[in-house]
Amino acid sequence: MADEALFQFLHSEIIQYVNSAESGESENGRCVSKLESMGFRVGQGLIERHISVCRFTKDTPRFKDELDVMKFICKDFWTSVFKKQIDNLRTNHQGIYVLQDNKFHQLTQLSAGKQYLEHAPKFLAFTCGLVRGALSNLGVKSIVTAEVSVMPACKFQVMIQKM
Amino acid sequence: MADEALFQFLHSEIIQYVNSAESGESENGRCVSKLESMGFRVGQGLIERHISVCRFTKDTPRFKDELDVMKFICKDFWTSVFKKQIDNLRTNHQGIYVLQDNKFHQLTQLSAGKQYLEHAPKFLAFTCGLVRGALSNLGVKSIVTAEVSVMPACKFQVMIQKM
Repeated sequence: MADEALFQFLHSEIIQYVNSAESGESENGRCVSKLESMGFRVGQGLIERHISVCRFTKDTPRFKDELDVMKFICKDFWTSVFKKQIDNLRTNHQGIYVLQDNKFHQLTQLSAGKQYLEHAPKFLAFTCGLVRGALSNLGVKSIVTAEVSVMPACKFQVMIQKM
Repeated sequence: MADEALFQFLHSEIIQYVNSAESGESENGRCVSKLESMGFRVGQGLIERHISVCRFTKDTPRFKDELDVMKFICKDFWTSVFKKQIDNLRTNHQGIYVLQDNKFHQLTQLSAGKQYLEHAPKFLAFTCGLVRGALSNLGVKSIVTAEVSVMPACKFQVMIQKM
């Protein structure tokens, strides 16, 4: 039995539940921010776990610079969560990285029509948090946003916050 | 990067969030029932996906009887979600099955003290729903309950509902 679907179904359930639970004036914003925080903690947890496993096997992860950390996120981290790598990584070499996923799982559930684009932030918030949390536990403070141009392609922009 | 932790972290986040969102008189019961429903839909989804993949590869799953379905849940289904098989399956051959997991991931986060046993239902509800949903999409209607004796061992009891 393939297992890449588990995260996808669970992710949908979370969005649906958080969306229905966060009712009120600024419900959409609150829903997005809740999902982002959940993603952040999960991202932190995954990296903590990864580091402790590496320590145990004495195979401590070493990154020579920020770009190296970003490559780890695009390859190992993305594969462990989404069962595929990021399709394209670009940087301006001044602290901004753009990670492009040409077929982002979490968006394939939404129809491709433009009218669904307004719902996209809810489907991306958890993953933005996930990346921010992972980076944070790798010692890189960042702001992560996402943008959909043509579904289901998606770009995550990571702005490194210099300490 | 190992990925068996993703479900575990996500599951904790869901419990925490549902627990905080469902406030009111019977909050504990409502939290447990929400988690069970979420698990049910995820279980259904996983089986739907599995069946459609099998159809695509012309490797349609066939079960010769109820026990065969239960064995699939204990092996393939459990492994795909929890990365391990059920440790023991027992049945009275009259529609009751007991699935024992000697080290249930979702409980290893709780301390082993007796005072934590009262929180156990929240940590088991999603999985009860998961099994009920999976069985339901395999044509088996059931009631699934769970019980902890010595943490982190756990027994899931499946009572088949004859149509």
